[in-house]
This record gives sequence, structure tokens and C-alpha cells, in this order.
Amino acid sequence: MKPSSEEEEEAVWGVGPWDECFEVAVQLALRAGQIIRKALTEEKRVSTKTSAADLVTETDHRVEDLIVSELQKRFPSHRFIAEEATASGAKCVLTHSPTWIIDPIDGTCNFVHRFPTVAVSIGFAVHQELLAISMRTWPYQGSQRLYELSHSSWDLKGRQLEFGVIHHCTEERLYTGRRGQGAFCNGQRLRVSRETDLSKALVLTEIGPKRDPDTLKVFLSNMERLLHAKAHGVRVIGSSTLALCYLASGAADAYYQFGLHCWDLAAATVIIREAGGTVIDTSGGPLDLMSCRVVAAGTREMAALIAQALQTINYGRDDEK
Amino acid sequence: MKPSSEEEEEAVWGVGPWDECFEVAVQLALRAGQIIRKALTEEKRVSTKTSAADLVTETDHRVEDLIVSELQKRFPSHRFIAEEATASGAKCVLTHSPTWIIDPIDGTCNFVHRFPTVAVSIGFAVHQELLAISMRTWPYQGSQRLYELSHSSWDLKGRQLEFGVIHHCTEERLYTGRRGQGAFCNGQRLRVSRETDLSKALVLTEIGPKRDPDTLKVFLSNMERLLHAKAHGVRVIGSSTLALCYLASGAADAYYQFGLHCWDLAAATVIIREAGGTVIDTSGGPLDLMSCRVVAAGTREMAALIAQALQTINYGRDDEK
Repeated sequence: MKPSSEEEEEAVWGVGPWDECFEVAVQLALRAGQIIRKALTEEKRVSTKTSAADLVTETDHRVEDLIVSELQKRFPSHRFIAEEATASGAKCVLTHSPTWIIDPIDGTCNFVHRFPTVAVSIGFAVHQELLAISMRTWPYQGSQRLYELSHSSWDLKGRQLEFGVIHHCTEERLYTGRRGQGAFCNGQRLRVSRETDLSKALVLTEIGPKRDPDTLKVFLSNMERLLHAKAHGVRVIGSSTLALCYLASGAADAYYQFGLHCWDLAAATVIIREAGGTVIDTSGGPLDLMSCRVVAAGTREMAALIAQALQTINYGRDDEK
Repeated sequence: MKPSSEEEEEAVWGVGPWDECFEVAVQLALRAGQIIRKALTEEKRVSTKTSAADLVTETDHRVEDLIVSELQKRFPSHRFIAEEATASGAKCVLTHSPTWIIDPIDGTCNFVHRFPTVAVSIGFAVHQELLAISMRTWPYQGSQRLYELSHSSWDLKGRQLEFGVIHHCTEERLYTGRRGQGAFCNGQRLRVSRETDLSKALVLTEIGPKRDPDTLKVFLSNMERLLHAKAHGVRVIGSSTLALCYLASGAADAYYQFGLHCWDLAAATVIIREAGGTVIDTSGGPLDLMSCRVVAAGTREMAALIAQALQTINYGRDDEK
């Protein structure tokens, strides 16, 4: 029986309003992981997107198609923000409808090189307010299906990330977080580090896709500032999503990045918050999921120290592209 | 029956002169991995060595003690170069005797933070020439045992790395390489990438323990040069040994570092060479295991490109400390 509205869904699904969604996300993340693991053994055709370092493969598209088409079948009223559809021109805007935020392969460059740090990320957001809506075209899979899209500021009241599911494909680790229900890796509860001293911190970051000299200078200067502040170390593993999972599991004390996208961040944000951590804007203010920048840490103190140390790199906004 | 000389060992062990050594190394690396995995769940007392970022724990000492004492019992005529003994003042010199080169925990900073990229590395080198020898003190475990130590240049003819065993403790991957017999990970043959184009390369490096402003400037400048050359990406995972294993498995195209030690490099060098790769000095010349610097790559061409791009950071020599 298919529910026709969010209210009916809540009634039908009993235990929690989004239980079925969560279970489907887990199953799809696991299926996607199988496809990615198999594809890691095969030759790949690689294309570039915004820069020579911003790669995409047939597997990114295949995995995204699988996840989105299955979710569309199960939840026809839901909306989607997905990396490769967005790269193909779909608008990236959060609505009042339940919205899936999907990165089919986070760490595509790693995937291309068979570097074993690759993840599928599925986040799920809901907005409980009805908002003035506008009509735009959603070109996913070439269809002309229309979606109601509304304004895009993440921090408007009532819109929340409900859950996140991240599958570390090569290590077969499944990270999950559900609002109010904790965060787990393969069933084991996650807890962030409680470190507040930057000189004892392990900090994670990513280079980001822009590689022009000015951007690189600021990227390197930010790393230099943290090393001058005597952070134990800085790690760059090539997957924002998995770096954020490591943070959630207490394996690092902080993460920052300019140039990541809402699909890198949505699922991980729930997981980090449910593991006790903090996710904020690089300005030190509240997280804006569309702003292409983030600081995450085990503690508020650590997040503030990192934010203070950083020079900004402007990547624009996901919802203005 | 205990052999009393290298020649007798060869006769007794039949299939290959160093088979028993190799098997013992594998067993010890696996046992060490168990200890490290258990220790990852416990609180740690952390000390610093050469800098605030150069860490050591009780587990580093415990694992090194286990490995060295077991090897001493089994192979009393053999010599040892081991990270923590060296940090405590033992001289780091290769001799004409079979020599074990041991890093009990590569990625100690990761280990301290429970960042899941931690390895045990056991390399084994033999020298077939008898050399003029001098007597020095080997203070391992506080004993005053004397060892014959000879001159230290790695590249003298006749001295060879026979095998390397590296255990990625958290992922339970065992990397092995034996001279002339190939390199493997959990029984699967390893082959390096054949990439020769830097603009398609994934490059690995590590920050190194020196964190003074001048050293950091050169470290960051080297990273900048490679990103300017449009390398797909640079990764910093916090374990030289495992980065070199990823290179051996074809998951990256090149690795370089200033500030690593012979115990980070010995086992991995055999594994990379047996996987078809190249390990050279950052000057472009032959590897000098004691020189605290290295370029490794899947191809000679890639290694040469990386070496040409790098500015030198002087870390001295392992055998002059």
C-alpha cells in the first residue's frame, strides 16, 4: 500500500515515520557497494567535470541511477539532490518535500585509482513547513519531470536532516546516523573525540576540485596554519564523506573543507551530530549545507579553533549553480 | 636444532635460505597486529620524541620488544635495527650479518588517535660480503650485548633486502614481498600502476616529523608543485609504510617523502620492487636506505618526474644519528 502523503506514511510505518526510508537507504547503500567493489576490478572510462581533478566514471552514473530510480519507485513523492544529476544541470535546491541527498561515489578520484577509500553517501532531509513554491525542471535521467522547488537556505526552521547512511565500500563498513537515535558503524555505537586542544589534534581535510594557483595557495596556507599551531597531523584521504565518518568515530578531532558539496556532507552531518560532534560553517556560524564549506569537530571548542584559523576559499553555493 | 652460521642456516632450511625467517616474520607481524588492535580500544600514554608530532606509546615498545626478543631467540646471530631502540640511542647501521629492520607501529600518530591506518613493518636484509668490522655497543632492552657493526652505505654491492612483511593491523591485510618471488596482499599478487603521466597520477606523501617553519614551507611547496603539474590528487594517510603498500598494489602512482626512516622503507621497498615498481633517491639516483628520503613509483618515468619536481628537505641520515 502506497502512502499518498507524509502524514499517512507516518501512520503506516508505525515505529518511526522514516523507518522504511532508512531501511531502503541501507539496502541500496549495500547494493551500491557491491557494484563499486566489482567495478574496482575493471577498467574505467574516466571523464572530467569542473577541473582536471574533478572526475566522473560510468559507475558514478550507474550507481546514482540505481539509487534514485529505486527510491523514486518506492517513494514517488520524494525529491532528489544527486551529484551526477546536478553536474548535468539539475538544480540543487532543498524543498518542503522529503529530499534524498545522494553521492553515488564519494572519492571518485580514489575509485579511478583503486585507492581503497571510497563511499556511497545517502542523506535524507525533511521540511515540515509548507513554503511558497516555484516550479523548475528536474532533468534527472533526461526526463522532463517537474518538481516543486522552494527557497534554499538550509537553516530555515523546520528543515532537518533525518538520517544518513554511508557505506565504506572497500572496507565494508556501514555508517548510519538517525536523528535522536545515535550513530553506528556496523552496529557499534560511534562517539566523537572530546579533544579541545588543537596541539593534540588530528585534523582531516581535502584539497577540493579547484586547482588554480590562488586557490592552492590558500589551501596550503590553511594547512600550514594548523601545522604551525602544532596539530599532531593533517590527513588527506580523498573522501570527504569517509573523513567525516572517521571524525564521527573519534579517529580524528576535526575536519574542514572548502569545495565540498551538500551530497558530501548531508549524511555525514547526521552521523557526526548523533555521535556527539559539531558541524558548523567555516565562519564559525551555523552550518549552511549549500555553502560548499564546513568545519566539523568532536567539540565546539575545537570547531571554533579550526574556524578561527582558516582563510576562506570561495566555491560559491550549491543552490546557485 | 640451532644453526651456528649463515651457511648452516641455508642448509637446514632447504627450500630457500630465508624461508624460516620469512615464516617467523609473518607470524610475528600477525601477533603484533593482534596486540595493536587490542591496544586501539584502550587508553594510551603518549610520549614525544624528536618533535611534538613524533609520538611513541607503550604499545610501540611492547610490540618491538616482542618482535625483537622472539627473533633473537630464533636467530641469535642476526642483527636488528628497530625504531624505538634507535630512538633510545642504538646505532642504526647495516652489517654483513642478516639484519632485521623493524617498525613496530608505523603510523603511531594514527594509532594514538585510533585513525585506522596503522601497520607493523618487518624487513630483512642480508650482506654476502665479509667486511672489515668494528665493535660498537648495541643497547637494545638495556643489555650491553655487543654486536659487530660495519660501514653503513646501503648501496655497497652484495647487500640486499631479501623480504618484507607489512601488516595493516586494522584492515587485517598482510603485504609480503620476497626477492625474486613476487609481492602479495593476503595471497593476491600485487602489481604497480604503469602510469607515466604526472597529470593522471595519484601521489602519496607524508608530512614528516620536523615542523619548523622552513621545513613546512618546503613540504607545502613540494605539494604545490605536484598539484600545479595537475596531479589528480595528493594523499596524506599518516603511514609511510601503508602508503608504500598502496603504491605496490597499484592504488597510487607515486610516493615521495623526506623524513622517513629505514624501518619505514625496508620492507616496503622489497614489496614495491617485487610488484614491478621503482624505489629511488629523491635526487633521482639509487635508493640509499639510510638517507631519510625516497621516491617510489610504478614506473621509472613517473619516479623521475617526481624526483625532478621536488625541493630537498634535509633530515640527515639514519646511520649518522
